[in-house]
Amino acid sequence: MTVTDEYLANNATYASTFTGPLPLPPAKHIAVVACMDARLNVYGALGIQEGESHVIRNAGGVITPGEIRSLAISQRLLGTTEIVLIHHTDCGMLTFTDDAFKASIQEETGIKPEWAAESFTDLETDVRQSIARIIASPYIPHKDNIRGFIFDVATGKLNEVKVA
Amino acid sequence: MTVTDEYLANNATYASTFTGPLPLPPAKHIAVVACMDARLNVYGALGIQEGESHVIRNAGGVITPGEIRSLAISQRLLGTTEIVLIHHTDCGMLTFTDDAFKASIQEETGIKPEWAAESFTDLETDVRQSIARIIASPYIPHKDNIRGFIFDVATGKLNEVKVA
Repeated sequence: MTVTDEYLANNATYASTFTGPLPLPPAKHIAVVACMDARLNVYGALGIQEGESHVIRNAGGVITPGEIRSLAISQRLLGTTEIVLIHHTDCGMLTFTDDAFKASIQEETGIKPEWAAESFTDLETDVRQSIARIIASPYIPHKDNIRGFIFDVATGKLNEVKVA
Repeated sequence: MTVTDEYLANNATYASTFTGPLPLPPAKHIAVVACMDARLNVYGALGIQEGESHVIRNAGGVITPGEIRSLAISQRLLGTTEIVLIHHTDCGMLTFTDDAFKASIQEETGIKPEWAAESFTDLETDVRQSIARIIASPYIPHKDNIRGFIFDVATGKLNEVKVA
């Protein structure tokens, strides 16, 4: 049995008490952008209920053109106006460099990724960088409520990153 | 009070019973790629516990270079080998075309997005397209366990997409 099969069994339990459907636009008009890390349960950590918030996640919780795409769709087509960014302690993105990671892929496959790996060396600096990229984007209309946090994987607490 | 403040209050409750830290690599060696939709609570719907699975999400749950980046980091640096893709019924991506969305942004801001919006017209076809993009990527080493599903926002059930 694969993990996928195990999750499908869990889904049958979930569906047995499911009450839907809810409306398509997020009821709380908010989008969360977080790292894909396995220890960061965004629903639990923020107390998000079904139907409330868009949740966008990738390696690092960084803002790349792909996240600008998702945020543009979120704000322009589905009415969100507030953004929360979440990085976390002990992040895998702190453990390598773009150059080394891409060189290792090139060595193994013969092809160097055409994308940036977006590794970083300081959590707070990268949260600020992510906010700066949203502010700089011409495609995101609502920028008055953007806040960034670092989730502590030891305590479960969100600590806010002060933006100058 | 913003929604962010409300979620921070929820976080204090979450942290009060939090037991960590867990190891960095996902314990179940799996990565889930899902739509950002507010009604799709990936943790609830699949019964995922903290520490088990990477969760990657964007508008549509589509595979773009950004998701290849996250999956490459997930598999190559953090040991995952299994991938689950989740689209869902009543998806916002079915409600517009790339051309119209980008033209509206160009009209409002004067700048046309340099990225594809990745709208689609058929859920099952797009799940298969996403799987095909992973299969075609030279950067993803583990492709033997990739399965795609459509989450039904009315029933909470995951329905598997058959791949030819």
